[in-house]
Amino acid sequence: MDLHSIQTPSLVVDRTIVAANCEAMARRATRAGVSLRPHMKTGKAKEIAELATEGHSGAITVSTAAEAEFFAQRGFADITYAVSMSAQKLCRLAELQRGGATVTLITDSLEAVEAVEAEAVRLSSSHRVLIEIDTGGKRSGVDPESPLLLAIARAIDQSAVLELCGVLTHAGHSYHCTDIAAIVAVAEEERAGVVLASERLRHESFPCETVSAGSTPTAVHAASFEGLTEIRPGVYTLFDLDQVGIGSCVLADVAATVLCTVIGHNPSEGTAIVDAGGLALSKDVSAAEFMANAGYGLVSEIGGGPPIDGLFVTDVHQEHGIVADANGSPVLDAMPIGSKWRVLPNHVCMTAAAHQQFHVVERGGVDIVEVWDRSSGW
Amino acid sequence: MDLHSIQTPSLVVDRTIVAANCEAMARRATRAGVSLRPHMKTGKAKEIAELATEGHSGAITVSTAAEAEFFAQRGFADITYAVSMSAQKLCRLAELQRGGATVTLITDSLEAVEAVEAEAVRLSSSHRVLIEIDTGGKRSGVDPESPLLLAIARAIDQSAVLELCGVLTHAGHSYHCTDIAAIVAVAEEERAGVVLASERLRHESFPCETVSAGSTPTAVHAASFEGLTEIRPGVYTLFDLDQVGIGSCVLADVAATVLCTVIGHNPSEGTAIVDAGGLALSKDVSAAEFMANAGYGLVSEIGGGPPIDGLFVTDVHQEHGIVADANGSPVLDAMPIGSKWRVLPNHVCMTAAAHQQFHVVERGGVDIVEVWDRSSGW
Repeated sequence: MDLHSIQTPSLVVDRTIVAANCEAMARRATRAGVSLRPHMKTGKAKEIAELATEGHSGAITVSTAAEAEFFAQRGFADITYAVSMSAQKLCRLAELQRGGATVTLITDSLEAVEAVEAEAVRLSSSHRVLIEIDTGGKRSGVDPESPLLLAIARAIDQSAVLELCGVLTHAGHSYHCTDIAAIVAVAEEERAGVVLASERLRHESFPCETVSAGSTPTAVHAASFEGLTEIRPGVYTLFDLDQVGIGSCVLADVAATVLCTVIGHNPSEGTAIVDAGGLALSKDVSAAEFMANAGYGLVSEIGGGPPIDGLFVTDVHQEHGIVADANGSPVLDAMPIGSKWRVLPNHVCMTAAAHQQFHVVERGGVDIVEVWDRSSGW
Repeated sequence: MDLHSIQTPSLVVDRTIVAANCEAMARRATRAGVSLRPHMKTGKAKEIAELATEGHSGAITVSTAAEAEFFAQRGFADITYAVSMSAQKLCRLAELQRGGATVTLITDSLEAVEAVEAEAVRLSSSHRVLIEIDTGGKRSGVDPESPLLLAIARAIDQSAVLELCGVLTHAGHSYHCTDIAAIVAVAEEERAGVVLASERLRHESFPCETVSAGSTPTAVHAASFEGLTEIRPGVYTLFDLDQVGIGSCVLADVAATVLCTVIGHNPSEGTAIVDAGGLALSKDVSAAEFMANAGYGLVSEIGGGPPIDGLFVTDVHQEHGIVADANGSPVLDAMPIGSKWRVLPNHVCMTAAAHQQFHVVERGGVDIVEVWDRSSGW
């Protein structure tokens, strides 16, 4: 089987690039003296988790209970579920813990602590908990300087079924930095904020073994990791156009693409129609913040390699993608009907989620050497 | 089981509303004297296809080979696959035909006809084919006045393995009309264009049994269906905010919503965080073309009903949705942590695609009376 013969649209990943991305991040973590707990919300495949944890503890991060189940069933026993815990999902995580895994929870409110504690009592389970800290992303998390931080710590620490293990933050606003200096500043804000929270906990004699931070941009560009115990980047395993735009990587680091087939031509517009539309590519256009004419993705040859200058998916319908040349030249001759192409995605976490499997190639080849199953749903 | 007890995020559908939407469109088709071939790219569930074809022929439209397989396996034997056919997918459709279904293909180029014909010969299969007509959408299809129309008709008609059955169009540009008069005009452009194509074919003595048109907006608002034999709307089965904005329906017709749970509060922003983010809701923001503050969806009570004035999903991360009040008032008191809500989607075709199942309620209730499986992937 090779890329010429498989049905499209299909998700393709180059294992060589994933391995290099994983190795680079692992080296960075080692140099910084922090543990790497890769976030599997991007890859959602056992094989990517294996590459990302090679030579390490095997600790991972997940974003859904379904991912926790998927990875626990595949031998990953140290999992941080890095989305605010809701009591209703606890039964599924308690079940995983009965099977031998440890699933560490996060929270940022007294209400959630109370509800999770009551549910843990009901389930006769006990859970490790990190307090989520807001270090400027303004999405979720406790202000590191607030009295609430200590109140939550106290509530967890006093519980017989919850164990306070530290603090965690995610500087999601690093995704909107427009230059490296800004990322460095956000990374420092992220580090300083979560370390401050850890110091306040320790000053009050609360346990704080874990001080966890990290998005891909801040993990790549941070000047200091002092006081952190671990980082949790995820999108670096595959990278995408958005991360190229932010400056976390270069185009050659983009590991996952959507294979598509030209199914039609629009002679009056000079455009080609491919069978990867809004469902196969997602409607995420995050790279537009950083680059002109990224559209719904850039287009490269079936064998991968750099995107072809000017070619991009200018519009999507549910199952149709429209490929145009940014210079306005017709693409019909270059893209005959039946020919296959690879689309580099804007935001690979969103794009990959529509696909059940990765078709795996290596070293820029077209032979499919493996198929990797992905977790999906919730 | 009821909506209070299921895991979130989950896709919920009110069967009563689906049935009413289906009945209204069936009545409209009957009044207009055209067949209804509902497009299953929206519902992707056997039970929705059953409601949409009740009292009719059972003919449906699909957008992927996976949908064709899903519905053929569930007894739907008359399927139009309304995306330009590519030769590579033919083997799967030929297999369905060997099982007793008929899958009608569409094409808009001589190159595709040649490739599909060669593949049909190789597979020893034969296929019904419609020619796709561009009636102003400028996505795909042949200009109804072009010489190419007759050239394609001739190529199909001369083939021993392809059977020319007529013409088909989709006025996708009706989705961007800003008032009803504009939809009426697009509907007439759609009708007149595809009918012109049919007349040109018949004038040259080509067979043209089918004259197929229709999007949901044009099916709802067309002044005339003269010369058409069938319509193929799809999103009307479920409706969504985009269709409310276009004027195809009212809010009470929106049948599918995403059930979510409040997992956190952001006191400084006055926002609530729910566990339906960019994956569960999709990143489609099409309703923004028609209404302010639709964001990634409007929010209603767990029991459904009209959206709560001002409440909307203002931003999404992968697994986080941020709910705010358009008036700027804090939502924290109204939306306690652990409470459940339903989000009305922008574009239900995109939103539903992330979910494997519908949780079915009826008459605005919260009891889950059935679970419907959905087709997914390609």
